[in-house]
This record gives sequence, C-alpha cells and structure tokens, in this order.
Amino acid sequence: VRRLTVVGLGLLGGSIARAARARGVAREIAVVSRNRAMLDRARDEGVADLVTDHLTSGLAEAELVILCVPVGVVPSLLRSAWPHLARGAILSDVGSVKAGIVAAAESCPRREEIAFVGGHPMAGSERSGFDAADPDLFRDRLTLLTPTPRTPAPAVARLTAFWEALGSEVRLMAPEVHDRAVARVSHLPHLAAYGLVSVGDGEALAVAGRGFADTTRVAASAEGLWTDIFRNNQSALLEALAEYRETLSRWEGYIRDEDWPALEASLARAREIREKLS
Amino acid sequence: VRRLTVVGLGLLGGSIARAARARGVAREIAVVSRNRAMLDRARDEGVADLVTDHLTSGLAEAELVILCVPVGVVPSLLRSAWPHLARGAILSDVGSVKAGIVAAAESCPRREEIAFVGGHPMAGSERSGFDAADPDLFRDRLTLLTPTPRTPAPAVARLTAFWEALGSEVRLMAPEVHDRAVARVSHLPHLAAYGLVSVGDGEALAVAGRGFADTTRVAASAEGLWTDIFRNNQSALLEALAEYRETLSRWEGYIRDEDWPALEASLARAREIREKLS
Repeated sequence: VRRLTVVGLGLLGGSIARAARARGVAREIAVVSRNRAMLDRARDEGVADLVTDHLTSGLAEAELVILCVPVGVVPSLLRSAWPHLARGAILSDVGSVKAGIVAAAESCPRREEIAFVGGHPMAGSERSGFDAADPDLFRDRLTLLTPTPRTPAPAVARLTAFWEALGSEVRLMAPEVHDRAVARVSHLPHLAAYGLVSVGDGEALAVAGRGFADTTRVAASAEGLWTDIFRNNQSALLEALAEYRETLSRWEGYIRDEDWPALEASLARAREIREKLS
Repeated sequence: VRRLTVVGLGLLGGSIARAARARGVAREIAVVSRNRAMLDRARDEGVADLVTDHLTSGLAEAELVILCVPVGVVPSLLRSAWPHLARGAILSDVGSVKAGIVAAAESCPRREEIAFVGGHPMAGSERSGFDAADPDLFRDRLTLLTPTPRTPAPAVARLTAFWEALGSEVRLMAPEVHDRAVARVSHLPHLAAYGLVSVGDGEALAVAGRGFADTTRVAASAEGLWTDIFRNNQSALLEALAEYRETLSRWEGYIRDEDWPALEASLARAREIREKLS
C-alpha cells in the first residue's frame, strides 16, 4: 500500500496503524481523528506520517482508507468520505455489524474507480482507546470481509492481502450471514457476561475465582460501544437471545424437575462442541 | 502435618498431593484411590509415600484427611471414614457445595477427639483427572472453609494453616452463605457458558474469537461433575438462575423497545462492578 489512511484513533484504528507500521505494510500512514492530542502522540511515536483532524485532507491520495469509528457512525462517515476518495481507492471499515454499513455504501452514487469492502477483525479487548492499541492485535485472529455480488473482486483481493499482512486470517461472508453469526458468538456472549456480573454482584463477588473472571472478562468492555453494536444488530441479537432464553428455560426445567440425565446429556453436547475450539 | 491422606486422585486430590509434596507441607503423604494405575503413578512419581485402594488402611495414623471425590459422593464416604479416623484427626473435603456435606458430618456420632471442617478451594480447571494435577493450582487462589458453631476452633486454625502453606488465601463462611455465593459466581456462570456454546453451535462457531473462547472456557468442563454439583446446590442455583433470567428478560425488553439509554445504564453498572475484579 502506498498510502494507508486510518480514520479514528481508538483501539482498532491505533492497532491497525501500529501493525501496518511495524510490519512495513504501508509506505505512508495518514491518521484522521478529532482528538488532536492523540494525533500528536501518533505522530511523535512514529506511527503516522501525516495526521489531521480534517477528513478530506486525510483521504487525499490514499489508496486504502479504513474507517475505525463506532459502528453506528460508519454510515454517515462513509457518505461524507465517498465523494473525496482518490481514484482507485478502496474504502473499508472495522464495524462489528455489517448489513447496514454495506447497504449505506451501496446506496452511495456509483463511482467506477473506487470500491467499498466491509471488514470486521474478530480481535478486540475489553480495553479501548489508542493507549490499548497493539501492533499484534490481529495476529492469528480472524478478519471477516463481507463483499456482495456488486463488490469488485480485485478490491477484495487487495484488502485480503492487507489483513493477511497484518497477521490475520481472512474469511469472506455475506453481510447478513456475518451479522447472524456474530450475534451468536460475540454479541450474545457480551450481553450474557454483563448479566452474570449483575447477578454475581454483592457478597458473592468476594469469592469469585478464575472461572468467573474468564466468563465475565468481556463485561469490562465499554458499554457505549456495545449498546451501539446491539442497536445496530437488533434483530439478529433478539433471535440469538430468544434461543438462549429457551435453552436456559429448558435446563431450568430439568433442574426443577430433577431430570439430571436430561441435563447431563445437554451439557455433554455443549462440552463436545466447546472442546473442538482451542 | 505428620501424615496427610488424600482420598481420590483426580484434579484436586492430585494437585493437593503434588502441592503438599512440592512445598514440604506433610512429612508423609498417603493416597487412597480405586484406580490402581493412578496409585502406581503417584507412587512412582514420588507424590505419595503410601498408596492404597483400601480406605481404612489409608486413614490409619493420618493427622489430616481430605476427601477429594465428587460432591455427591462425599456424605457417604465421610460416614464410611468417620469411625476409622485416628484420634486427633481433622477430616475435610473439597466439595463445591457445602451445606449437605456439613450436615452429614454433623449427623455422625460425636467423637470428641476428631473434627470435620468443610473446605472448598476456588481453583479448578476445565481439565480433570490426575494428569491435569498441578502443584501450583492453589497458589494465589481463595480457599473457603465452612466451619459451624460446633466446629472446634483449633481444627479450623490448623486447616487454615495447611491451605495457606499450599499458597492459598483462606476465608471462612457459613455453609449456606457459601452455597448461595458459589451458585452465583461459579455454578450459574458454568450453566450460562454451556448455554452460550449450545446457541453458538453451527456455522457461527467458525468465526468465534477470543471473547467467545474466554466466555465459554468453563463449558469444556466434565458434564458429570457439574451435573452432580448443580444437583447438590439445586435451590440456590434455581434462585440465581431466576434472577439471571429476569435480568436478561428486562434487557431483552429494552432491546425490543429500543430503550437504548436504559440498556446502556444497566451495562454501565455491570461494567463498573466487573472492573473492580482483576
């Protein structure tokens, strides 16, 4: 990449810039943020060659632009950026929910020489902000790209190569398939973890061990970001939540009725599935 | 301790024997198990000085006896062991649920010179068996002891010193308080994790990241052991589960009704609580 522009300097934007610099993936790195203090730090640390709080200046001459802002903000930022992208540019993002963002991109006036490809690195942290940015955040993690039949194949190939260069494994998925999948393996688990902490609060918390710490680690995540994610994936999350509620209700029935063999058989199926993950 | 006898050679029994040996906490270590192959390994590895599959031989001359068998088996094993304990012996266990076990001990015929003290190290692993036994399993972990007004104070002090010598921090709790607390911070989170895996199964599982892995790690635990634990803590677990169900239902309502400020406020409270844990 000749010039990479990262818009937004939080955990993900900062980690992309740091990873790209550390791995020599981009000749030039530009960073756009409204936070002047963070921009100065990014420049002083050598993470960025060009820093600006002005979106259109940051987009000039960029070959690859990645929007790293909260998922709810991506559609409007994308529409603002669209007319200012350089010829041949690829625009992408890191939002956790894809259908709305992809639809917003496809509703922009067609420009033959530029392409949008939705992206979502399955890497994060309960920490947030540029301070938590880590050049190894994407190493050995999965990044999902969500092209549609309208997305130019060369843009998908270039973005795939970019994420692979940051150490990530890349997989392609349709936006709606992506949103239903992450509702189940990311959004619901976050909501469940926040719920476990709520129920665990009080004197019980004093005896919490490693199991509780692991199970609820993601509940230390910033609630604003996650409310934004839940809001943008409302229907898929409600579907996953309903299935979770039904599963736990069934098990609650087994416990109340002392049907221990049925409970054990259900847990055995879950344990077998879980053991396949590392 | 002159002679420590560990009954049961799974993860916890094996880890206690290994930790006691590594830290020189007991002059002699005896191990009782029905698994001859494991006994031979424990002896060959130098973890135990005396191995036997005969309970009463293992109890002879023991100053401290710890029953490390599944929680549902503890009461009957305790009643079998009771008449054969040496004068002055302290009997304890590592069961995850305490009220039933403590009641079983207190219903044994009174023997002035011996004492039972319920114990529960809040250390475990999704792995089980002697192969997973770890001499550092208890280091910097909490061990809960559950004496009652009938428990002799010197026995509590000695058992406290024993667990501290294994690297553990010790806290005392009434058995019923213990059972309600672990229902919330251990038993419910295990059930919730098994549930998340069940809902996550399918093509979604292929995109699961570190958040899902952490949140569901405990769902790799042996379902037989956990069904036994749930069965022995039925009422406290049902209480915690009802509160969890109500919490998630309320949040599901916020999501359905798009009351995002109410959802965010609830998540903020959970995040603040979680941040206080390490």
